[in-house]
Amino acid sequence: MNNNEKLNIQVCEIPRAVPVGMVIFGASGDLTYKKLIPSLFGLYKKGSITKNFFILGVARTDYDDSSFRKRVEQSINQFFNNENTKLIHDFCLNCYYIKGDYENDATYITIYQRIIELALCYKTQGNIIYNLAVPPSLFSVIVKKLGENKLIEKGKNKEPFQRLLIEKPFGLDFQSADELNKIILKYADDEQIFRIDHYLGKSTVQNILVFRFANPIFERVWNRDCIDSIQIKFAETEGVENRGGYFEQTGLLRDVFQNHILQLIALIAIEKPEIFKAEKIQEQKIKLFKSLKPLKEKILNEYLVRGQYKEAEINGQKVIGYREEKDVNKKSCVETFFVMKLFIDNNRWKNVPFYIMAGKRLNITETKINVVFKKNLKCIFCDKNNETQKNLITFNIKPEQGVSLRFVAKVPGAKMCVAPLYMKFNYKDIFGYEIIDDYESVILDCILGDQTIFWKKEAIDLAWKFLDPVLKKWNSCSLEEKNKFLHFYPALSSGPQSAFEFIRKDGREWF
Amino acid sequence: MNNNEKLNIQVCEIPRAVPVGMVIFGASGDLTYKKLIPSLFGLYKKGSITKNFFILGVARTDYDDSSFRKRVEQSINQFFNNENTKLIHDFCLNCYYIKGDYENDATYITIYQRIIELALCYKTQGNIIYNLAVPPSLFSVIVKKLGENKLIEKGKNKEPFQRLLIEKPFGLDFQSADELNKIILKYADDEQIFRIDHYLGKSTVQNILVFRFANPIFERVWNRDCIDSIQIKFAETEGVENRGGYFEQTGLLRDVFQNHILQLIALIAIEKPEIFKAEKIQEQKIKLFKSLKPLKEKILNEYLVRGQYKEAEINGQKVIGYREEKDVNKKSCVETFFVMKLFIDNNRWKNVPFYIMAGKRLNITETKINVVFKKNLKCIFCDKNNETQKNLITFNIKPEQGVSLRFVAKVPGAKMCVAPLYMKFNYKDIFGYEIIDDYESVILDCILGDQTIFWKKEAIDLAWKFLDPVLKKWNSCSLEEKNKFLHFYPALSSGPQSAFEFIRKDGREWF
Repeated sequence: MNNNEKLNIQVCEIPRAVPVGMVIFGASGDLTYKKLIPSLFGLYKKGSITKNFFILGVARTDYDDSSFRKRVEQSINQFFNNENTKLIHDFCLNCYYIKGDYENDATYITIYQRIIELALCYKTQGNIIYNLAVPPSLFSVIVKKLGENKLIEKGKNKEPFQRLLIEKPFGLDFQSADELNKIILKYADDEQIFRIDHYLGKSTVQNILVFRFANPIFERVWNRDCIDSIQIKFAETEGVENRGGYFEQTGLLRDVFQNHILQLIALIAIEKPEIFKAEKIQEQKIKLFKSLKPLKEKILNEYLVRGQYKEAEINGQKVIGYREEKDVNKKSCVETFFVMKLFIDNNRWKNVPFYIMAGKRLNITETKINVVFKKNLKCIFCDKNNETQKNLITFNIKPEQGVSLRFVAKVPGAKMCVAPLYMKFNYKDIFGYEIIDDYESVILDCILGDQTIFWKKEAIDLAWKFLDPVLKKWNSCSLEEKNKFLHFYPALSSGPQSAFEFIRKDGREWF
Repeated sequence: MNNNEKLNIQVCEIPRAVPVGMVIFGASGDLTYKKLIPSLFGLYKKGSITKNFFILGVARTDYDDSSFRKRVEQSINQFFNNENTKLIHDFCLNCYYIKGDYENDATYITIYQRIIELALCYKTQGNIIYNLAVPPSLFSVIVKKLGENKLIEKGKNKEPFQRLLIEKPFGLDFQSADELNKIILKYADDEQIFRIDHYLGKSTVQNILVFRFANPIFERVWNRDCIDSIQIKFAETEGVENRGGYFEQTGLLRDVFQNHILQLIALIAIEKPEIFKAEKIQEQKIKLFKSLKPLKEKILNEYLVRGQYKEAEINGQKVIGYREEKDVNKKSCVETFFVMKLFIDNNRWKNVPFYIMAGKRLNITETKINVVFKKNLKCIFCDKNNETQKNLITFNIKPEQGVSLRFVAKVPGAKMCVAPLYMKFNYKDIFGYEIIDDYESVILDCILGDQTIFWKKEAIDLAWKFLDPVLKKWNSCSLEEKNKFLHFYPALSSGPQSAFEFIRKDGREWF
């Protein structure tokens, strides 16, 4: 990458967090040790989180400060190789634990006392974040108790601030999300609530807006005159693993569409904000979600195909199907795969189909967005294979982050023959590594009070309103109907054939 | 380049030449052994030139078939490592030689007899190409004699064909080119004349048209609404070497502007041809050259800066200046460097400056075209360093061939800060090597009768008409004036400072 070396690009400094204490509900759970602790330590290691910082773990498990610290240390050692033990030790000294029941006021009274002591000790100036790393069913319980016990109050988004950091999923449909929001908003303003979508913490995802709005050559062509269609692919090889119980309640549509995918659609499709600030971007997202064309008719097959992985044999090894997974109903019709087509009813996007393909237990782990451009009207190089003549801009989000551009070029040789080639840009090639992990971004932005990459109430409402008819229609189906409209695919395959027919009948193909 | 591997791109087959004999005038000169023979052998090796092929060398040097073949073999061994000796031997057997004077009819009578014999022997069906690898002063002499002795006749562009392959420079100004054309066109039609510009044989150069017209996303922005300016850089570290005598007569402007650079401008700027055929492309080039805004006023300094390299010391080693070169006038004011600004007066390009920088004995050997796009009107990420916010498409022609696109992207790190990064595409990375050399392309296209990459009479006329006022004005200057307007630069430097001021006063910079 000579050109980039020449530029001598400086990685931007990661901002310093303000003094803050963090209360983690669910401090004995998986999420805490797999995501939260490694991310907090990562920020600590970078010097972004200062010494004016403490963690207070809360859970029902019978830990004390000492055993909690041991578990924290374990988690760090698992994710950081050969890390400086002094640094880990110092970090652990900032960690404290309270054993308690989430429904019990006594727990909150203890928390209240401890955070006052710790705030004094660590000079956190009263800034506090309540991190809800618990199952969704506990969200409202905890917030209610926090509110009733005056641990959180409305209007506290400036320093000293009191904020809530909430994991997805946010509700299971419009009604449940609305109820949850109503409870939370009784005790906190929307500005104090940070609803996590860790996908939005990824560089490439944030880069989509920069790419669109800082590059006039692309801004010019970002509309229905030039764009044929948008494709979003969200594939993973993992199955439901040990989350069968959770998955039976949600299904893939709820699990990824209402959050990650809608956000990706928003980033690809929103109008240019006046300035690059959270509230202006959120405003544009809201406008966009309002323009989503409702999926009213024939949503059981014409705009949506559901799939579920079934048993397969790979290299003589049996791979179980979804219905054989732990905590899954043997007759379950929950989707582990879907393709969807949707439209945005505004000037920029009218009649441009957005195709989404998402699935678990596929043959590849890959998240990417393809912006497919229209062919040339007057195509002086076109041959029979016309799909290859379409320009393609691909945002690669997972596993590698980057952007690529497919263009048509002359192929060497004497004849004037052409082929699609790629120009590629890859974050790892340029910067060697991910400077900041997506989860670190999420936490840091919450501490800094930057709402850009979080979900706001109104967006959540609109997202569920869009999805609700689909969910309702499916739920009201008979088991026979469900089975009829559920397309099975072998585990670790490319998905059901119907997913390919789905787009082929529109004269297109998946890229 | 995973994406390209996936595509499994096939290099296009190199077409097979038709049976043909080639008469090389100047068969004992440098050009023959450095370019022609290696290229002809290259085509032979690829199977593109078949066994129905012979070379008849003509020159004043005292060679015979045998000594000519030895020289041919030497040349091949010099450019091809460890080549199959049988193959070289077979190739050499197709080579013949006639010693003769270019002004003497007897030479042409001998040529006539030999090509009839050789045509029968090699079954070349009477197809013949006369290759003029001689100094320009001999062009008209040879063509006249060829015509008078009925070796070439008008109307012979279909098989059996008689063609002329002519090296640059084609004339020294409009008048001399016109005179030359008049003589040649007395004996041959314009379709029979292939005026070489070997630059047009390069993949990247040919790729410019494909890039522009096969990629709708770029076609959309290829106009004055989106493009700020075009920059063409044509730099080499070489000085005039042993071509001082030639250079004193031409200067760099004639040497590269009237051919290579104007062609590059044409490829960047022409309108889309109806179909991708030589005559349609030539038509568009003619239209474009007619739209060149004449350089009438202040051409001695406002639109053109001339430079000349002077003595320098590099690492304690003295490097001589142009005036110290062999066969160069000690007071010479011939330019070895120039920058120029020109405009094209049509709808697409009105007011878009084309900046050209060309020079010998610079610190780099590099030919490239930069298409510089306008900044965003509503620039939500702009900071003080605004030049970096311009999108840039670069066609790299020399030393490496490829295309790169500069775009603005988010730089990793928590803050939303942006920097220009590159997506790159490089022919060598994809195909490993140049499938066909530029000179091979030129020869093969002449054999195949494809005029796409050659200069036509009308284009030559227009090119000289554009340049003539500049040349006349300069020639009519006094020596004092010439010295005043000649900007010296140290050998192997980046050129005279005035070249940088030249563009800076337009609020731009060289990329």
